[in-house]
Amino acid sequence: MRVFVAVLALFFNSNVVAQPPENNGKDYHRLAEQIVTHALRDGHSFQMLRELTALGPRLSGSPQAAAAVELTRQMMERWGFDNVRLQPIMVPHWARGPIEEAAIINSPSVGTAPLTICALGGSIATPEMGIVAEVLEVKNFEELHALGKKAVGKIIFFNRAIDPASFDTFAGYSGAVNQRGNGAVEAARVDGVAALVRSMTTALDDVPHTGGMRYDENIPEVPAAAISTLDANYLSALIARDKNVTVRLRLTCETLPDAPSANVMGELLGSEKPEEIIVIGGHLDSWDKGTGAHDDGSGCVQSIEAVRLLKALGLKPKRTIRAVMFMNEENGLRGGIEYAREAAGEKIKHIAALEADRGGFAPRGFAIEADSFFVRKVSVWSAYFESIGAERMRRGGSGADISPLVQQGVPGLGLVPEWHRYFDYHHSDHDTIDKVNPRELELGAAAMALMAYLISEEL
Amino acid sequence: MRVFVAVLALFFNSNVVAQPPENNGKDYHRLAEQIVTHALRDGHSFQMLRELTALGPRLSGSPQAAAAVELTRQMMERWGFDNVRLQPIMVPHWARGPIEEAAIINSPSVGTAPLTICALGGSIATPEMGIVAEVLEVKNFEELHALGKKAVGKIIFFNRAIDPASFDTFAGYSGAVNQRGNGAVEAARVDGVAALVRSMTTALDDVPHTGGMRYDENIPEVPAAAISTLDANYLSALIARDKNVTVRLRLTCETLPDAPSANVMGELLGSEKPEEIIVIGGHLDSWDKGTGAHDDGSGCVQSIEAVRLLKALGLKPKRTIRAVMFMNEENGLRGGIEYAREAAGEKIKHIAALEADRGGFAPRGFAIEADSFFVRKVSVWSAYFESIGAERMRRGGSGADISPLVQQGVPGLGLVPEWHRYFDYHHSDHDTIDKVNPRELELGAAAMALMAYLISEEL
Repeated sequence: MRVFVAVLALFFNSNVVAQPPENNGKDYHRLAEQIVTHALRDGHSFQMLRELTALGPRLSGSPQAAAAVELTRQMMERWGFDNVRLQPIMVPHWARGPIEEAAIINSPSVGTAPLTICALGGSIATPEMGIVAEVLEVKNFEELHALGKKAVGKIIFFNRAIDPASFDTFAGYSGAVNQRGNGAVEAARVDGVAALVRSMTTALDDVPHTGGMRYDENIPEVPAAAISTLDANYLSALIARDKNVTVRLRLTCETLPDAPSANVMGELLGSEKPEEIIVIGGHLDSWDKGTGAHDDGSGCVQSIEAVRLLKALGLKPKRTIRAVMFMNEENGLRGGIEYAREAAGEKIKHIAALEADRGGFAPRGFAIEADSFFVRKVSVWSAYFESIGAERMRRGGSGADISPLVQQGVPGLGLVPEWHRYFDYHHSDHDTIDKVNPRELELGAAAMALMAYLISEEL
Repeated sequence: MRVFVAVLALFFNSNVVAQPPENNGKDYHRLAEQIVTHALRDGHSFQMLRELTALGPRLSGSPQAAAAVELTRQMMERWGFDNVRLQPIMVPHWARGPIEEAAIINSPSVGTAPLTICALGGSIATPEMGIVAEVLEVKNFEELHALGKKAVGKIIFFNRAIDPASFDTFAGYSGAVNQRGNGAVEAARVDGVAALVRSMTTALDDVPHTGGMRYDENIPEVPAAAISTLDANYLSALIARDKNVTVRLRLTCETLPDAPSANVMGELLGSEKPEEIIVIGGHLDSWDKGTGAHDDGSGCVQSIEAVRLLKALGLKPKRTIRAVMFMNEENGLRGGIEYAREAAGEKIKHIAALEADRGGFAPRGFAIEADSFFVRKVSVWSAYFESIGAERMRRGGSGADISPLVQQGVPGLGLVPEWHRYFDYHHSDHDTIDKVNPRELELGAAAMALMAYLISEEL
């Protein structure tokens, strides 16, 4: 790359495809340009993400989560948001114990060998001395149940990878994640003694990726852990060669009483219809691996930054734009549920809800969960987002935290950034700020700001 | 991110915007899907990039560049390409010396302090004991020339940053890179003794980013070096505080006699019009920092992989698709020039040329450098590229290596991947394979394969 750069600039200026639609007197192309310029030159998302991730991981109920509530409240005060406040909730409080370990203890080929694992969020502990049992590898629940008695007393090893051929990594994840969510229940259903689940990641790496799992009150509870993809491949290869591979698994995690916490919110009050609200948010909690930089520190700081950008540009939207830091998305959704419950009892009206919870990568567009009128309306705005690279408007799931609002009929939108790297880092020690590109993060905030403003003015 | 993934898949299935155009009986949507699936499941780009970058950096004239010629020749043989051959050329042979160093030697504030620098490609050495001179900071050539006599005997410090507000990082780079290319000439024009140039990068980091520079035969030659962006800011801050900051600069680089080298090429021979050629290529040489993983190891392996993909899927294109590894893009363009020179004298006809030289990031589309007929034709194919995420078809510069062909009237296309991170790594020790995501790299190859095939069949 050397000679051709001077002409490359043309690529961005000569649009041979769509021309922008007319609008009723407001120059939204110019506005988009102003937002982008300000975001790239003077944006604060990355600096806020530094502050947030410096607190450490923000698992619901942890001191760090409490610190994140106070930090983001202070950020909103710092930028002069209106009506900055906390919405108290009680959250589940699961804690990873000091010890979690697993090892192969009887392979003829290798003797003993440690395995890189971590407890899944919500798992019970093993007995103090651990569980020692033969490992049974399966790819899905049907295969497990067909094995019947063979599963009794075994550690069930769920080893179905995310399909690499899935262009949409979120669809690939969706096609594999039932092993993590329901593996423990299905293992116990056939009298297995534990669940060991291949990490839900597109990367081949040596770190385990945690995440939520659940129990069924009618099925005994057994411990559940994630194993790194490299060690999943290793264990699978050993099982194929050696019969009766036995593993010792030890976890010391525990579920503590529910803890007090809060959603955090602040607003840019509407100039004409302040009682009509556009929510823009992410979730403040994270798993306890890494520092939740992409999931979802990015969405939180982008939501604050989007409101800050509109204020900094001197815009006075007709409707109220409210940034919300939802608490406890990862293992309970208590924040999203409480927000929607309280909203339903108030006289305010939610016009739309935007969520950013797919990482801080370059924005590509929005996934829209609404009726056809709303989808068409937003799709028409696509051209305004070309200068941000976020012109891709499609139907799709919006976001977990706003899903209770969406169930009440509020149109939901999810910011969709570039999706190929997200699950490389997701829920693991690799989800740290060095994986976030400052420009890409700031552009996501710009896209959120423009979308919130368009909804306020044009819907 | 947890609850909503099941519905997110909809995002990729329900297109509320464009519908694909009709085509003459070939199901290119299905073909695109096949190419993507194969690329993501069984693609070889990343493995080839591992092999290529394991050789080390591939500066023109270096033993590693010779190794890269032989390695890529063997790769083409390994995949059974037709007419695998070398096209001999002579290339410039500049070599970074064993010593390159700079230090502040007289600041009242800090005394002495080392600066992180590297010679620019093509620079002459300093005298053996180095150059010791006061530093004069300027932002552009106009400012320099206005200073007149004040520049005499000084080290001219060109410190204009890439504009962060430029959404298109290539345009931002283009707006700053004249400091690197012409800084030495302009410094010497006012009797400066050396040029110290702010690294051409969007990152704020502690490594220098090298790159090409030139001399003018009518102007004395002075040494030129890049300084890291962090140290550029540091030096600038010191200059603002302390008067007469003096720096010692020492470089031991040298220009050796031209060395023998070659372009490497191999083909999938056309089934109906084998004499009509579609070139698909990248440049095999790199700078001597990092291992040229993004610039342009990615484009090389993607070009080989694109042809391999078409072969692996059993496709027999009408026209010949030729992968070309161009040598010496970075400091001479000898490969591209020789390729076009020889092509002009042959009876074959070049239908189009595709280049990948903007990094191995997720593909977004193509920049097209051709007449309106060709641009419109390719733009109509946009919908086929949606399943690869590369639907953005715009006019723009195609690529340096194919620019001599384009000057002969051959339509040129450049693969345009996501552009925000490229200049973070470009021409520095950070341009290594760990910055390349395997999925994104393979998708770029898929986009190249589909584009080459469409041109072959539909133009």
